[in-house]
Order: sequence, then structure tokens, then C-alpha cells
Amino acid sequence: MLLVVIIFQSSVTMAKEVVLLDFWPSMFGMRVRIALAEKGIKYEYKEEDLKNKSPLLLEMNPINKQIPVLIHNGKPVCESLIIVQYIDEVWNDKSPLLPSDPYQRAQARFWADFVDKKVYGASRKVWSTTGEEQEAGKKEFFEILKTLEVELGDKPYFGGETFGYVDLSFITFYSWFHTYEVLGNINIEAECPKIIAWAKRCLQKESVAKTLPDQKKVYEAVAQMRRRFVSE
Amino acid sequence: MLLVVIIFQSSVTMAKEVVLLDFWPSMFGMRVRIALAEKGIKYEYKEEDLKNKSPLLLEMNPINKQIPVLIHNGKPVCESLIIVQYIDEVWNDKSPLLPSDPYQRAQARFWADFVDKKVYGASRKVWSTTGEEQEAGKKEFFEILKTLEVELGDKPYFGGETFGYVDLSFITFYSWFHTYEVLGNINIEAECPKIIAWAKRCLQKESVAKTLPDQKKVYEAVAQMRRRFVSE
Repeated sequence: MLLVVIIFQSSVTMAKEVVLLDFWPSMFGMRVRIALAEKGIKYEYKEEDLKNKSPLLLEMNPINKQIPVLIHNGKPVCESLIIVQYIDEVWNDKSPLLPSDPYQRAQARFWADFVDKKVYGASRKVWSTTGEEQEAGKKEFFEILKTLEVELGDKPYFGGETFGYVDLSFITFYSWFHTYEVLGNINIEAECPKIIAWAKRCLQKESVAKTLPDQKKVYEAVAQMRRRFVSE
Repeated sequence: MLLVVIIFQSSVTMAKEVVLLDFWPSMFGMRVRIALAEKGIKYEYKEEDLKNKSPLLLEMNPINKQIPVLIHNGKPVCESLIIVQYIDEVWNDKSPLLPSDPYQRAQARFWADFVDKKVYGASRKVWSTTGEEQEAGKKEFFEILKTLEVELGDKPYFGGETFGYVDLSFITFYSWFHTYEVLGNINIEAECPKIIAWAKRCLQKESVAKTLPDQKKVYEAVAQMRRRFVSE
């Protein structure tokens, strides 16, 4: 009985000691929120105003000054994919995110890195530019999505039978798909039906469904941001 | 006695099954060579002609088509930092490269990622541009080096008392320092003495000393490359 009480207290303490500095439409922040949800970790969420960053953010991530930052027992971990790996290593008792086999883990890291380096840059061109630059961005965006579609193949998830690291790294962009479609005048499902089927499969998971914001709400926020880049 | 024979045979087989596709002046390729040397892994080195990439490279890394690629038992691992982590996980019996503590591991990943994202881009501007672009590149390069110098502090290595993942990720750029100094007309030691002292410390390790090419040889190769970018 004593043991049960101690475990319960330790779990509560740990929950109090996890803080996430984040910004709600950030696909990078969402990755961390999904990982925390998959592991069932309670945490304090602190929304950042990116135009007026908090002293805590600047103190915790003085190098990049970016969200998300996970603060665990007072110590910061920065960069979304590094945070997700950290969460997976510390809370390793349930819902493994990276595969246990070193070769499969290397492959998962390769594809998460591919998403990180390629999808964000191309998608940004789709919503924040016009004319030739936007057309080039749309072409690049679809090339990247089609590469990912080939990698997915007929598997239910990128890692195989279960939702994992690559899925988590990429699915957060789905909350922006409506924005890309409206602002870029594109139809993603027509070009990449398997990606959309995969995204809907991911959304059946509570950790994903509860994390991803409403696509219309993202669109409203991004349409406002677009005005800073584009005068139409 | 039987056991000894089996271990010996297995070790020989494994050695035969490791192939590295690389290009000698590549600081990314050198990372993998240092990791393999640290672990004492024998491998077949295959030099790539980057202007005329081999069918094997295109087959093994069809997505990025870049060196280095580690082929282990016929299966490719791409991207230098992912390869180094793979090597550290598979050959985990000696010379650990990443720290065992998850928090320290996250910090090592953060700084290796910082080197990856920042040092290459800025250093490239130092040697491949002229005029204002080069001046901006030099300023950026020194800012990055000084950030790394602060992180190093008074520790012998980035990870503390022993050579590890961040050291390995960054030291390979040292073979290009003479090139940056001559082509950028800069003096790195005058600005960042601790980085130079750290680099000389790393070079006392056989794995590093045997891997890093002669700085003059790198200069000759890069000076030729520079002519493709700059007409002086």
C-alpha cells in the first residue's frame, strides 16, 4: 500500500515538472503535444506570443529563441524532433515512438529529417508567396508529398503497422492542408490520395485528434499572417 | 575455444559487410570515418566523383543522392548524423559517442544539429563568395564559432571529459579552417582561441588525426572549386 502511494506521488510530481512553451498553430509544437499525449504525460501548457516572446522562452532557448521548448524538472530541451526523442527515451514504459531496431530507427530518423527539411520550406512558399515563386513552391510541395506517398506505399503508417515517429513528425502539417489548398488554389487529395487516407487514419488516434487544431481556425490565422508577406 | 573462433569469424564477416560511399574532403563523410575509427570497424571505402555519381550511390540514396552513405549488410543508411547515431547504436560495445543519459543525449543532439544547420552554410559563404556577401558570411561564421566557444567553456570536449558526438560533428570542419582563413582573409585563432585549442586536443586522438585530410590539400581542392563560383 505504501508503494502505491509513493508511485502516485512521484507521478504527480513529475506531471507538475513538465512545462511546454508553444504556439498553437505550430506544426513543430504539435509534434511535442502528440508525443506527450501518446505517453499520457500531464504538463503545463504555456502559449507564447511570438511577436513578444516571454522572458522564460528567451532564458530557456537563448540560442534559437524558438518554440517548442519542453522544460523538464527546470531544464530545457529544444527542437521538436529532439524533444520527441527525449520524451520517447525518458517515458519509455509505453507507446514507443521510435522503433527498437537500430536500422529501422535510422530509417525513421531519415524520414522525419526529410519532413523537417523539405515540407516546411515548400509549404511556406505555397501560402506566403504569389506568382512564379508560388507556382514553383506548389510544384516542389507536390514532389515532396509524392515522395512521401511512395515511401508510405500500402502500409497503414510510415513505420508499418503502428503510429510512430515519422507519422507524428508529418501529421501535424495536415492541420494546415486546408490553408495550403485555399491560399495555393490546390487540391491535395486529387494529387496524393494515399496521404489523405493516411492522415484520416492518424486522426482516429485520440492523441492526434485532440492535438490538431481545426483546419478553418488555422486558415483564419494564416490568412492574416499572409497579409504581412503578400499585398493583393 | 570454439566460442573464440566463432566471434573471430563473425567479426570478419561484419567488417566485409560495411561499405562507405564518401568524398575525401567532405566534413560530413569525415564524421562517419571518425565514428568507424572510434569503434574499430573495418570497412570498404569507395570514393565518389560528385560530378559523375556512381550507380551504387544513386541506388543507395535515391532521395538525396548525397554522400556519405553507409551500407551495412547491403542496406543503406544516409545523412551523416543519422549514420553516426546508427554506428553508435549497433557497435555499442566500445567508445560510446552519445551520452547514456537522455538529457545529456538531447543536449548533444541539439549542438550537433546546431553545427549541422549553421556552420556549413556560413563557412560556405566565407570561401565561395566575395564582397558584401562574403563579409556577411564572415560575420555570421564568427558569431557561430563564438556561440560554440561559449558552449565549450572550459571543458576539454563539448560533452565534458571525453570526446563525443558534438566534437565529432564539428571537428571535421577544422580540416577546412586553413581554407577559410586564406580565401576569407580571416584569422580564426585570434578570434576563437578556445576553439583552436579544442581542435588541437581532438587531433591528439588517432581516430581524428588519421581521418582529417591535410589542410593544404583541402585548400588546393577548394581553391579550384571556388573558381566555379567566383571570377576574380
